[in-house]
Amino acid sequence: MNFTQKLKQAVLSSGSHLCIGLDPNPELIPAPFKKHFPSDTDLILNFCRQVIEATKPYCCAYKPNIAFFEAYGSKGWGVLEEIIDSIPPGKIIIADAKRGDIGSTAEQYKRAYFGYLNVDAITLNPLMGFDTLDPFLDEASKGIFVLTVTSNPGAADFLMRRFEGRMTMASYIVEHLAKLEMQSDTHIGLVTGATQTVTLEHVIGKYPEATLLIPGIGSQGGSVEKLSLALKNHRGIPIVSSSRSILYAGKNDENWLEKIALKAAETQNKLNILSHEQPET
Amino acid sequence: MNFTQKLKQAVLSSGSHLCIGLDPNPELIPAPFKKHFPSDTDLILNFCRQVIEATKPYCCAYKPNIAFFEAYGSKGWGVLEEIIDSIPPGKIIIADAKRGDIGSTAEQYKRAYFGYLNVDAITLNPLMGFDTLDPFLDEASKGIFVLTVTSNPGAADFLMRRFEGRMTMASYIVEHLAKLEMQSDTHIGLVTGATQTVTLEHVIGKYPEATLLIPGIGSQGGSVEKLSLALKNHRGIPIVSSSRSILYAGKNDENWLEKIALKAAETQNKLNILSHEQPET
Repeated sequence: MNFTQKLKQAVLSSGSHLCIGLDPNPELIPAPFKKHFPSDTDLILNFCRQVIEATKPYCCAYKPNIAFFEAYGSKGWGVLEEIIDSIPPGKIIIADAKRGDIGSTAEQYKRAYFGYLNVDAITLNPLMGFDTLDPFLDEASKGIFVLTVTSNPGAADFLMRRFEGRMTMASYIVEHLAKLEMQSDTHIGLVTGATQTVTLEHVIGKYPEATLLIPGIGSQGGSVEKLSLALKNHRGIPIVSSSRSILYAGKNDENWLEKIALKAAETQNKLNILSHEQPET
Repeated sequence: MNFTQKLKQAVLSSGSHLCIGLDPNPELIPAPFKKHFPSDTDLILNFCRQVIEATKPYCCAYKPNIAFFEAYGSKGWGVLEEIIDSIPPGKIIIADAKRGDIGSTAEQYKRAYFGYLNVDAITLNPLMGFDTLDPFLDEASKGIFVLTVTSNPGAADFLMRRFEGRMTMASYIVEHLAKLEMQSDTHIGLVTGATQTVTLEHVIGKYPEATLLIPGIGSQGGSVEKLSLALKNHRGIPIVSSSRSILYAGKNDENWLEKIALKAAETQNKLNILSHEQPET
């Protein structure tokens, strides 16, 4: 099965466009749970396992954010591996790594993510040039999500600026990726922040079939309604990623895990509006 | 001691502007050495140790390229940690990670590199915006090297293009960094490829005090003479990084380690031309 088929199945079987971002931050993990674990690595391992168990009915994908594991070096990477193993089959796993480097180095990152960790997809940063993507393009069962418009204010420094006669650098990136997709076995998707709907609508016109990984609807404040309008000409699969607003929905309450499940279910529900835009294929 | 003082001392005590890139690739490690190690992780650990031992008289810094360790997941990260421990005191250690993400994630990468690994500097990718650098700016003993002009052909896709009325995006980045340096405790350096000397000369005019991390003189074909000319108005410290051309200088010869040492010494010598441009401060 190729990447888009796997993803479609994950969306259909869960009835959800929600991707849960795994950004385990010990400072924000509910106190009633935290007290059971003397070490941060034990804590984040067990927290993520509980989150996965509680949210699996409501999402199509999980997106571990590598930084939150890398913060603990080799031990953190060990936790990342255990967490990836504990994600139920049928869910898409996206490594949020935002790597980007010259070919010989990119080969090694490919080995790490498509080989060693064997996740379904990785996020990539194209700044050093489109040649940095090449090593990732020969795996039909995998996907890459290339940074296009991000949801942070800093998107205004580069990605949202005019570039090469285009309205935004994001447009320039997407034009190139739409061509690259035609020669690529690996599916090329886009990271497009939910807070930048005007730019989003514009770039989708240039590559309507792209799978979209959309952060920014939770803590970062993007609106699902505006997002749905911006996606009206989109013909690929949108997946919406939410991390902090779900992971820390329970604050320090005793019933924190129920609250996480509830928030995930609520978010899944809100995102149903996006399914209407999907063609029957 | 702040970062530039530490670096200056490392350059003076070694008499070298050479930074050795640690990119251990099992496929390229000399066969006479390789045969002693059944596992790739044992092989890269022992190879890097030998390289460090053989080259330490000739360099001021080591630059482990994280991808080559990450390719082996948590075990590879364990090797990275052991290698960092084995680098002699007095050498600068630069993690070549090229990370770049929104603030809450960048905080975790900072924790990984300035906290857990406790290296002297990290390479960063600014595409998502200058706000992604902010979490790294409060450590006087540390440095960041921001991607500005890279040495690969793909630099032509973004960094070498006109941007915001500047001759290149590299200029735009450097103008911003020169201002940011004034409010930053952490030293802000630049990654500037040796193959792009025209652009290099231009951007240095905008931030002459920047420490430069310069890849591209070895396998990528940049010339030290041209580089020296391009640096004539540079007032910071240039460090030139070489990886493959030193690490694999011995090919499959029995005396591969001597050849590595010889190549490092030769490169150190060639780079002496850069010292003439250094002011006495």
